[in-house]
Amino acid sequence: MLKVNFENSTINEEERRVFAEQLKSAHEQLHNGTGEGADFLGWLNLRIQDDELNQIKVAANKIKEISDVLIVIGIGGSYLGARAVIDALSKNFGDKKVLFAGNNLSADYLNDLIDYIDDKRVCLNVISKSGTTIEPAISFKILREYMEKKYGEDEAKERIFVTTDKERGVLKEIANQKGYETFVVPDDIGGRYSVFTAVGLLPIAAAGIDIDKLLAGVYAAEERFASLENNPCYEYAVVRNALYKQGKKIELLVNYEPRLHYISEWWKQLYGESEGKDLKGIFPASVDYTTDLHSMGQYVQDGERHLFETVLDVQAPNRDIVLEADENAIDKLGYLNGKTMNEANHSAMQGTVIAHMNGNVPNLLLQIDKLDEENIGELLYFFEKACGISGYILGVNPFNQPGVEAYKKEMFRLLGK
Amino acid sequence: MLKVNFENSTINEEERRVFAEQLKSAHEQLHNGTGEGADFLGWLNLRIQDDELNQIKVAANKIKEISDVLIVIGIGGSYLGARAVIDALSKNFGDKKVLFAGNNLSADYLNDLIDYIDDKRVCLNVISKSGTTIEPAISFKILREYMEKKYGEDEAKERIFVTTDKERGVLKEIANQKGYETFVVPDDIGGRYSVFTAVGLLPIAAAGIDIDKLLAGVYAAEERFASLENNPCYEYAVVRNALYKQGKKIELLVNYEPRLHYISEWWKQLYGESEGKDLKGIFPASVDYTTDLHSMGQYVQDGERHLFETVLDVQAPNRDIVLEADENAIDKLGYLNGKTMNEANHSAMQGTVIAHMNGNVPNLLLQIDKLDEENIGELLYFFEKACGISGYILGVNPFNQPGVEAYKKEMFRLLGK
Repeated sequence: MLKVNFENSTINEEERRVFAEQLKSAHEQLHNGTGEGADFLGWLNLRIQDDELNQIKVAANKIKEISDVLIVIGIGGSYLGARAVIDALSKNFGDKKVLFAGNNLSADYLNDLIDYIDDKRVCLNVISKSGTTIEPAISFKILREYMEKKYGEDEAKERIFVTTDKERGVLKEIANQKGYETFVVPDDIGGRYSVFTAVGLLPIAAAGIDIDKLLAGVYAAEERFASLENNPCYEYAVVRNALYKQGKKIELLVNYEPRLHYISEWWKQLYGESEGKDLKGIFPASVDYTTDLHSMGQYVQDGERHLFETVLDVQAPNRDIVLEADENAIDKLGYLNGKTMNEANHSAMQGTVIAHMNGNVPNLLLQIDKLDEENIGELLYFFEKACGISGYILGVNPFNQPGVEAYKKEMFRLLGK
Repeated sequence: MLKVNFENSTINEEERRVFAEQLKSAHEQLHNGTGEGADFLGWLNLRIQDDELNQIKVAANKIKEISDVLIVIGIGGSYLGARAVIDALSKNFGDKKVLFAGNNLSADYLNDLIDYIDDKRVCLNVISKSGTTIEPAISFKILREYMEKKYGEDEAKERIFVTTDKERGVLKEIANQKGYETFVVPDDIGGRYSVFTAVGLLPIAAAGIDIDKLLAGVYAAEERFASLENNPCYEYAVVRNALYKQGKKIELLVNYEPRLHYISEWWKQLYGESEGKDLKGIFPASVDYTTDLHSMGQYVQDGERHLFETVLDVQAPNRDIVLEADENAIDKLGYLNGKTMNEANHSAMQGTVIAHMNGNVPNLLLQIDKLDEENIGELLYFFEKACGISGYILGVNPFNQPGVEAYKKEMFRLLGK
């Protein structure tokens, strides 16, 4: 179960109380659907129906059976959630069951991917609400042609799964015409909040992760973080707004487990798109420690004081390593004798919190006991809800992303669309 | 050859001229060795001697011959340069010849790595000036024991390569005692500037990359960026300082090729450690576009106006893809008919520059024609030298990193060292 510790946030009870009215209002806007963007609150009290869940599981089992590799074609919220959950719950090394495409416009990336899958059995899952987003549209076109050439049109049809609008759009039309199995991107859930819908669940299940347990974590979190009072999720939203008000313009999401890297990428989209508008918003950045203590660590310790850290602490690894001193101790690691690697990792973490606090970097701590489905489900829901609340406190619509259209408009003009 | 374009930087000739005296002084400090940190200027006019280069090539060939996987054990500057160059010049998919360890304290990471290499032939290259940095020290201990168990002490000795101080330190002692082949971390080059020494060159060569061409790119860059006048490298240093002075506190390094991700990570260490001190410095961050246009793009377009972008533009991919419209055009991509994927990628890039400029985000452009050894050598040297100059203009010692010790001190106290 997620625990929060904001003792080192530098924000005291009184500074939090300043936000009491705004918090209450944000809570009501979210729960009564009276705030801006209220058409996109489907994630708040999500329940995946049994028939949909079953369809996802059947498709995932089929994918596992008939393929070595599932290529997920999608960008932004259409891939980040799945990637974050799969990475967090998979081994650090080894062949990956799920690969990602359609999230860039690099010809080399797509060509290299096609080389790589040449001797492998392949399935595709293309994910796009409209089907017109250029990155997945191009990659799907090329990979669809590849599949039809490799397997013939009939077998390709069995290997292509489409997640899109329930009735409209280019991708839905293609699926209808070709006879692909389809899954629904709900109308009332935006991309960055879609990880626990078919958008995320199909690839996650195909990667061998237990989506029942994942959803159990989400549903428990909905209960746990429902009320206005004593809500750790709301505390996080308030504390970060208080820090922003004090000039802390950058939030660094910190982890000490490499597998959490994409949780941070997912979190950056969630907070960046939700709050980065109307010329305001905390700039969301991330570091992987202790790796980046030997990179960004110098800046965090001694650079410009416009940042704070939110640390994800996983208390136990899946398998620890006990360190035993050499007989002749040539490596001078005797001080670690009998300690575990996880103890060293946590000493680094605790030492870093102390050092950065001494350097005037406020530290927020989020703890989970281990990386499993329930904890990841809870953690992601915690961030989702805190983000909605935080955006309302900030005074923005946390559920739109008008700025994302600006580059598309210019790009389509240049491409003569 | 690298080209720069600062037309969209919003910094005009006059605003640059303000820095003329500081730039001249920075240039003299660097070239005369009269500035702070002058003991660490070995990278400025680097020449790798033939016998050292030859030793590196012989070892790299041996590694290629006797192993499937080389595990590089190092953290910060001891791995980021090699990783950046190898990724930039390798395919996006497929088994990796070079893996990295000793850059975190995760027990799961190390256990998963050991599982992964179980059926593979392995070599190690451990890189540490002192040998006491805890991350590589622990990983080397565990992996050294693994190698001795797997191969026996005699054969393990042939498979372990050590890059460390030329005569002192724990790691040098271990190497002497065990009889490992050693390579030198020069005294006058700090970790983040060490990519073109044995630190970077041995793993890069073992990955099959032509280090002669890489160094040719570096040496050409030394000439090209040597003078005070008409120096693109110095223009970059001046423009970013001018932007910082105007309140642009975050620099986003942008790429449109996924293989450049670790160039950005290397760049973040270089600039973060060099400038992030004395309570000042631009916060270096990075995004992979178009991927992150669907994540951080909203913030960049419409969020708080404290950032600017530096865009790495690779003009041609290795292999392009021509897009041809479907007969029945069901995917509505007719507007791309006859265009290439690279044209689409560049339209996205140009469209994004226009959109972000309209959103008041200054844009700096660095162009290279393709990703090859010479261009990467030149680009990295460009960043190194610009960083030294930029740090002197900012008024800091760009070659130390006192803040990195703070967390270590607290950590060692907690570990009872």
